[in-house]
Amino acid sequence: MLTSSKRAILQTLIDRGPLSRAAIAEILGLSRAALSGLSGELIDAGILREAETSYGSSRLGRPSILLEINASHGYLVGMSIEQFGCPMVLADLHGTVLAQAILPATRVPEEVVDIIEEGLPALLSMAGVERASVLGLSVALSGFVNHSQSVCLQSAILGWADVPLARMVEERVGLPTSLENNANAAAVGEKLFGRGKEQVNFSVVTFGESIGCSHYIDGRLYRGHAGGAGELAHCTIELDGIPCRCGKRGCLDTIASRHAVVSAAHAATLPAESPQEIEELAKTGNPAAIGILHRAGNALGLAISHLIQLNNPERIVIASVDGAVGGLFRTVTKQAIDAYVLPQLGSVTDIRFDDVDEIFWARGAAAIAAHRYLIGAGGAKGSRDAA
Amino acid sequence: MLTSSKRAILQTLIDRGPLSRAAIAEILGLSRAALSGLSGELIDAGILREAETSYGSSRLGRPSILLEINASHGYLVGMSIEQFGCPMVLADLHGTVLAQAILPATRVPEEVVDIIEEGLPALLSMAGVERASVLGLSVALSGFVNHSQSVCLQSAILGWADVPLARMVEERVGLPTSLENNANAAAVGEKLFGRGKEQVNFSVVTFGESIGCSHYIDGRLYRGHAGGAGELAHCTIELDGIPCRCGKRGCLDTIASRHAVVSAAHAATLPAESPQEIEELAKTGNPAAIGILHRAGNALGLAISHLIQLNNPERIVIASVDGAVGGLFRTVTKQAIDAYVLPQLGSVTDIRFDDVDEIFWARGAAAIAAHRYLIGAGGAKGSRDAA
Repeated sequence: MLTSSKRAILQTLIDRGPLSRAAIAEILGLSRAALSGLSGELIDAGILREAETSYGSSRLGRPSILLEINASHGYLVGMSIEQFGCPMVLADLHGTVLAQAILPATRVPEEVVDIIEEGLPALLSMAGVERASVLGLSVALSGFVNHSQSVCLQSAILGWADVPLARMVEERVGLPTSLENNANAAAVGEKLFGRGKEQVNFSVVTFGESIGCSHYIDGRLYRGHAGGAGELAHCTIELDGIPCRCGKRGCLDTIASRHAVVSAAHAATLPAESPQEIEELAKTGNPAAIGILHRAGNALGLAISHLIQLNNPERIVIASVDGAVGGLFRTVTKQAIDAYVLPQLGSVTDIRFDDVDEIFWARGAAAIAAHRYLIGAGGAKGSRDAA
Repeated sequence: MLTSSKRAILQTLIDRGPLSRAAIAEILGLSRAALSGLSGELIDAGILREAETSYGSSRLGRPSILLEINASHGYLVGMSIEQFGCPMVLADLHGTVLAQAILPATRVPEEVVDIIEEGLPALLSMAGVERASVLGLSVALSGFVNHSQSVCLQSAILGWADVPLARMVEERVGLPTSLENNANAAAVGEKLFGRGKEQVNFSVVTFGESIGCSHYIDGRLYRGHAGGAGELAHCTIELDGIPCRCGKRGCLDTIASRHAVVSAAHAATLPAESPQEIEELAKTGNPAAIGILHRAGNALGLAISHLIQLNNPERIVIASVDGAVGGLFRTVTKQAIDAYVLPQLGSVTDIRFDDVDEIFWARGAAAIAAHRYLIGAGGAKGSRDAA
């Protein structure tokens, strides 16, 4: 574990990108001599490197040397557990994916360990990376994870309770391993590797097999008092709606999730197995398809309006795989957000729809592993072990 | 303005209560010698004092001397602008109210300055406090306030836009003056002077003339990207509900606010001018009164359920004047929260109903003034000037 001063330097570079030594010293309130010593040690350790020079701010034209995190200092493995399979990536410290694979689907913890053990050598071989260069591994899943990111406390989708998956993987694979809720992994991925870099207050809404949501507040992931922040999927939208697997009725998840819209299409005997196929039918004027997407978009927009009203984030990224929230679904979602948000809040909230691929969550998991390696697990706010 | 090290000492004492020098030094990573020097200067300045000794943690029975903020170092004036009048208090640095008055109602900025100028000498005289001992003044109001807490950007209730009230008061009264949204003032009051002292993640829902809401996240007030966090009152609850003064339909404010329930009682020709009088009618079995309180409680509980689902706070304090959210209203609100929140989140959220008096927001304003005096305006998170 690095010293707190070194972690503060790395956190500053994660927050703001490449900076000169003078800028880092000023931000952290360190003397230039102290900063120079610490950054020298981080460069010797290979964690930092000197980046391109910048002429921008110097009147005399003297270039200032910027420090940045050394992308190739080591590599991270990220995996996510999905219904269709387990995407797994190998990424460097800047988030560049060097190799990827879709491993077999499973919901059995021991089998998850098996497929990681079997999949890892192939991934390393594809990228030409030695196992000794791998700094850590992280698994993203749908569910509650404890504060130390080692145990899945509960997952309705996986049917798990108190599964110590991190320890199981570490014992077999020998890499530092952590777990994270998939929406939280998506947010950390956006912050470290993606679109959230400059934002300090933003939320990510993910539309995969379930609907996820997570918040960055003041530049840090906010996990909530008991790790339960971001349960947008179970906001009650229809008071007398249909039963949800959580035990309540009318949750957003029962109206707007991939499963919900496909089930509604089946009930209407539409020939559609995905949101995209329902969109195609809607384009032909099919009234049932149009109705399903209207209802889903209105529900998703209403739930997101509550998020904006309560937290006033600077940006909301709505990430869906292969444009699942596209076409009419997207249009109605936008219209609903406009209709249900106070005008003065709507005008300052940047809503972005982001079409992601199936390795999005695995890449987020790699970001979690990178975060843990660089600055430890303390990057998240507010979280404690759930009771 | 104090140095950042001294402000950090005061912030630590605000966060955790009285502490020994050794404990403060350890928390802040300062040497004992450095801490001793800084705390000595704060004691000499009268801001800190040595408090009662503690025998608790020392095995040898040697007492350790605790440092605390010196309550009588100086005094703060807090005022809130309400429909029925303008409560004004004089409080010490521990939040003890030494004098209070209800000044005349007004919504005209110049008249607000007039009543402060006229009210202040009487308040000081009641408490036997010299004007020279007053450290600052703050005004709580319903509306958006800019980041530097000087200008009311917008208030629908007061009909204000871009009113530089702080400067107007300072020019006439000669005291450092700030403004704050009344729900934010309530939260800072709870944190500095009240029930939120030990909490790092909590929300306050205030039920006065309007419904307010604010969040403490990681021990700091979270004001949102544009100062708009906590707009619970304008969460859309009934999609085709009645028009709200904000321009939308079916906002919580149109169903569950004091104004909304009293208007509903008038529409039903009930002899009631307050939520409490509607409660009295409900107790006698009046079906219209029961229906109004059921609808209001269900709406308030639903909106609070969204807050819990999204932010997972440790505690929510629901503060209402004179028990306005009492009786059936309170019971239905609780039942609705239970019904609409995921069981695992409901079980870890402490819901507290707090009956407050009419000086609650004025006392919160005094806490804002104390906060600004001790550690500046930088205690809040995430806020920037609204566009």
